[in-house]
Amino acid sequence: MSDLPHVVVIGGGFGGLDAARALAHAPVRVTLIDRHNYHLFQPLLYQVATAALSPGDVASPIRWVLRHQRNVRVLLADARSIDTANKVVHLDPGGGDSGGGESELRYDYLIVATGAAHAYFGHPEWAQRAPGLKTLDDALEIRREVLLAFEAAERETDASLQRRLLTFVIVGGGPTGVELAGALAEIARQSLRKDFRTIRPESARILLLEGSPAILGTFPPRLQERARRSLERLGVEVRTGAIVTTVDQEGVKVGEERIAAQTVLWAAGVAASPLVKSLGVPMDRAGRVLTEPTLTIPGRQDVFVAGDVCALQQDGKLLPGVAQVAIQEGRHAARNVARALRGQPLEPFRYKNYGNMAVIGRAAAVADIGPIKASGFFAWIFWAFLHIFFLIGFRNRLAVMTEWAWAYVTLQRRVRLITGEKLWPSS
Amino acid sequence: MSDLPHVVVIGGGFGGLDAARALAHAPVRVTLIDRHNYHLFQPLLYQVATAALSPGDVASPIRWVLRHQRNVRVLLADARSIDTANKVVHLDPGGGDSGGGESELRYDYLIVATGAAHAYFGHPEWAQRAPGLKTLDDALEIRREVLLAFEAAERETDASLQRRLLTFVIVGGGPTGVELAGALAEIARQSLRKDFRTIRPESARILLLEGSPAILGTFPPRLQERARRSLERLGVEVRTGAIVTTVDQEGVKVGEERIAAQTVLWAAGVAASPLVKSLGVPMDRAGRVLTEPTLTIPGRQDVFVAGDVCALQQDGKLLPGVAQVAIQEGRHAARNVARALRGQPLEPFRYKNYGNMAVIGRAAAVADIGPIKASGFFAWIFWAFLHIFFLIGFRNRLAVMTEWAWAYVTLQRRVRLITGEKLWPSS
Repeated sequence: MSDLPHVVVIGGGFGGLDAARALAHAPVRVTLIDRHNYHLFQPLLYQVATAALSPGDVASPIRWVLRHQRNVRVLLADARSIDTANKVVHLDPGGGDSGGGESELRYDYLIVATGAAHAYFGHPEWAQRAPGLKTLDDALEIRREVLLAFEAAERETDASLQRRLLTFVIVGGGPTGVELAGALAEIARQSLRKDFRTIRPESARILLLEGSPAILGTFPPRLQERARRSLERLGVEVRTGAIVTTVDQEGVKVGEERIAAQTVLWAAGVAASPLVKSLGVPMDRAGRVLTEPTLTIPGRQDVFVAGDVCALQQDGKLLPGVAQVAIQEGRHAARNVARALRGQPLEPFRYKNYGNMAVIGRAAAVADIGPIKASGFFAWIFWAFLHIFFLIGFRNRLAVMTEWAWAYVTLQRRVRLITGEKLWPSS
Repeated sequence: MSDLPHVVVIGGGFGGLDAARALAHAPVRVTLIDRHNYHLFQPLLYQVATAALSPGDVASPIRWVLRHQRNVRVLLADARSIDTANKVVHLDPGGGDSGGGESELRYDYLIVATGAAHAYFGHPEWAQRAPGLKTLDDALEIRREVLLAFEAAERETDASLQRRLLTFVIVGGGPTGVELAGALAEIARQSLRKDFRTIRPESARILLLEGSPAILGTFPPRLQERARRSLERLGVEVRTGAIVTTVDQEGVKVGEERIAAQTVLWAAGVAASPLVKSLGVPMDRAGRVLTEPTLTIPGRQDVFVAGDVCALQQDGKLLPGVAQVAIQEGRHAARNVARALRGQPLEPFRYKNYGNMAVIGRAAAVADIGPIKASGFFAWIFWAFLHIFFLIGFRNRLAVMTEWAWAYVTLQRRVRLITGEKLWPSS
């Protein structure tokens, strides 16, 4: 098998995993590397951050997902740089205290699907204060900060400090920001209602700040308006045209207005994984690779880019950084590798949009699916079924379904655990 | 209500939680403080460490457990010292970046139930290298180290380093050590079997080292022997009379023999929570308080000690550090507080032993319950039902039961996630 062409896939997210799977029957050997040992179902990550689901419900070990695909080898490794001239990926020095292991991978074809992180509008120092939501560890950190704020408020004796502890700011009104704001409102108004003796959790203030004129920018105006009203009904203050100019220990500044808040969550901006800098090809301002329509990088037919790290225009508009785009690009890159092996010309990628959805708390969602523009309970049911369907692993599907049914009836969130070594952020 | 006598309970484990519950109908106000926001079901913690259960399955927020008991207030706080002369507990400076909040609690009665950690035979520096299993964060760290060892081995090219990565040493042959060893053997032989391409996980070497002549010292000899045979059938090397003299980067030394191992887990020794030093009363070598039979400390009728932090003899033998003892002591301390309030004399504590059990992998256990000495499948079924019965929260019971049924059929462990910020321990 070792004389077969070697395809290296970097990244086990939607793009990379689907690329590896699409190569199952190709005459190649595949190595998939990732810094984490799990594939993460990103669309439900906000539910881990808001104590509704456990990390194990939305993540599956990559090598378990691919255990039956004998032509794939999975390696836990951090790709440090790519040398396209010599067709080598350089890895971190290796695992264990022994510090051994392979430190470079030679490839015949390379698929880069390393994703993106949040961007802080040129203020990287805000990252420490306002965590984003991209990894499982991010989600656990957000859960920790949110729950700790309520705990600290219960112990606080000063009224104005207590108000600051119970103020939560979410920056960014895309789907992630909207979903976080809705879930936080439900925690405060429903799940924690009976738990405290000094504070009233339902008095918490939750602000959703969006710089542009509307939340859910990619949705039609009618659904934007409905989402806004649903959030307001849950008690979220939605502010559009609100540009955050400062994030510091006190909270945030919007223009000249100070908002005192202990918890600031970041769901705005995008910065591609820095690995692709080593490709030495043109990138956009967010650091995404400007690929050819075939998903190859300019000048090379053996390096493909897929998912959030890829900047591709279609009909004059940039394709959005969502799971559907990553999955379709990953598969297309794999198919183009197979075509190249057969000596056929590469084909251009064309995204087929199946629709957009966002959830606004329990039993409410907005859905924009071709001719269908739905909102409310039926959009939520549809959202719930689709997400369970696309989740990996039957056991995870069952667990998530049970957890949702339970939460729907009891209004509880079971996973309200503060984990991590330190007691308080400042101690 | 604030003119009612104030009972402060330190610790939300089995002892403290049951003390607070037993005061539900007493004419007192209760403050329960803990460094964590959750009560942990310790007997199943090893299943989190071995990727079978999620943290949320074995932990429940303390304030949620006590949400209906209106005379209890729960505070997230770290007790730093106790001043029995002035009847005050001093807390950490307080939560949030604001650093405010109550920093001392005045009490009329105090119940100390702060538990114990592992002791490293006078070698505290071993703690870093060989994690124990007392908290949720311990369990996640052990899960991380075990899974990382397999990942590093898959990437390792040197055969002897690979063998070292696939050697797991567990120090201590009590119930925790036995349960960890059995679960590790199952992970290697069953759960991971199809996941790797370079290594054979089933070739992993798992050693259980016990210093005394037998494992499960508190069990009758016949069950000790059965447990040993069950472990050996799973492929665990059980060594009794094996005194660990060194723990370092290479592995461990047993007498003069070197065992090279990447992963060393600690399940031996006991050291009481250091808080009780500030009580200024006699302690045993492990730092446990030598209480009166009434569970009060010598010379004071208003300070009680319960659970692992308490050293009490009964019929000439020290009571063991298990959940049953802690629960019964916590309740007894609460009842003595109620007696003192009514002007009645305090009563001595008497432990009623309902039995001991330990699990050895899937579908095998040993049980020592009065006249019944059982082992094998039926002991395991009994163990499983009892543990589900005593777990807190119907939803947790359902989740654990489903997870076990699933694992029993598929031999899989669903929660094989490596979380935590760093990729490798040494990077």
